[in-house]
Amino acid sequence: MSTQPHDHIVRSYDEESQRLSGELLRMGRMAAAQLEAALDVVDRRDDAAAARIVANDEAIDALEAEVSHDVMKLALRGPLARDLRGILAALRIAADIERIGDYAANMAKRSTALNTAPPLPHTRGLNALGQLVLRQLREVLDAYAADDADAAQRVRDSDAEVDTFYTGLFRELLTYMMEDARAITPCTHLLFMAKNLERIGDHATNIAENVWFLVHGADALPPREKRDTTSVPG
Amino acid sequence: MSTQPHDHIVRSYDEESQRLSGELLRMGRMAAAQLEAALDVVDRRDDAAAARIVANDEAIDALEAEVSHDVMKLALRGPLARDLRGILAALRIAADIERIGDYAANMAKRSTALNTAPPLPHTRGLNALGQLVLRQLREVLDAYAADDADAAQRVRDSDAEVDTFYTGLFRELLTYMMEDARAITPCTHLLFMAKNLERIGDHATNIAENVWFLVHGADALPPREKRDTTSVPG
Repeated sequence: MSTQPHDHIVRSYDEESQRLSGELLRMGRMAAAQLEAALDVVDRRDDAAAARIVANDEAIDALEAEVSHDVMKLALRGPLARDLRGILAALRIAADIERIGDYAANMAKRSTALNTAPPLPHTRGLNALGQLVLRQLREVLDAYAADDADAAQRVRDSDAEVDTFYTGLFRELLTYMMEDARAITPCTHLLFMAKNLERIGDHATNIAENVWFLVHGADALPPREKRDTTSVPG
Repeated sequence: MSTQPHDHIVRSYDEESQRLSGELLRMGRMAAAQLEAALDVVDRRDDAAAARIVANDEAIDALEAEVSHDVMKLALRGPLARDLRGILAALRIAADIERIGDYAANMAKRSTALNTAPPLPHTRGLNALGQLVLRQLREVLDAYAADDADAAQRVRDSDAEVDTFYTGLFRELLTYMMEDARAITPCTHLLFMAKNLERIGDHATNIAENVWFLVHGADALPPREKRDTTSVPG
């Protein structure tokens, strides 16, 4: 909150662009930390920690607004094609990270609802799915930091694993709900939490596609796959 | 698919910008039509029509790619601040519409799973929620077409109504599942379909915020509200 005496000095395009990447990575790491914390509070059944995660989400939203603002400023400088790709990708990646943060906060919020019922064995499966997705998120942020399209591509490929895991957990939860009506409300929360994780995986994939786009340009961008195999869970 | 002999002629910035808005509206109206059709196939239990909706989603995705491409081209011309707002808003709105299309297609897909079980009375509530959301979507597209920030603001305000309706439907479905274990699988689909509609409402709100941003600039953009009151459904 201190006033910066040199704020009016015009920075070079490269400096501003670096600052933008830095903000984006900071935002991404905050979202990853939020996800990790959310998975942790589900395990520990810690309502106070869950409330902190929900409150922290505002910081990610504020960073997204900052990124959008910086993108505006950079675009007004009339960037070259490669630079423009970078700032357009930044805008999209920021939106994906913002959604990831929302999903992590929503998981934390749902965990407090879950804590009003006795513990369920399925939180272990949820945690395993969460760790898988968290690894994806961290790897795609590293790929962005390193401008590494191949690493991004590997993250994208690993999304099938997330979907398979999610579908298995989904069916398990449905079976459990049929066996015990008292489990329906908590299991519904777990269903939505699992869906949140699957969606975070999709957003990690989006980020991976934007890293690819950043490095290779629009024409090489592979088509986006459709997911959500639970629509018809057999 | 015919080759346009005059495609190489450089169009004016305004012409290109108008083309962009036109594409976006076309994309939005396709998504609205997809949503309307999805609500309809749920009612009529029409698997063949549902499959067509799923297939149609590709056209919306293709339009999003086109919009992104046009945004790139426009940004490279070094636009003025007001114009830049327009193209950044277009990029965000295109992403929102693309997601709305995905949700509509997902509803259609889930409807075919629903059709393997006997009809449920709750599809009526789902349809009512869907009509509410469809009205929001159409109104926000009109607000975008007319550059009408006040109309956009009204759409944003109406989102509370959607959330209240959604929460009611959510609780009703949970109660029903507890009463009849055979209803659990179809009701889970209805839960996710209701969630899809609530999310479409959120995206309509995002579009409304972008219309506001387009007209009034970044500073006047009101903070985004957090939604999803079902996390703790009482």
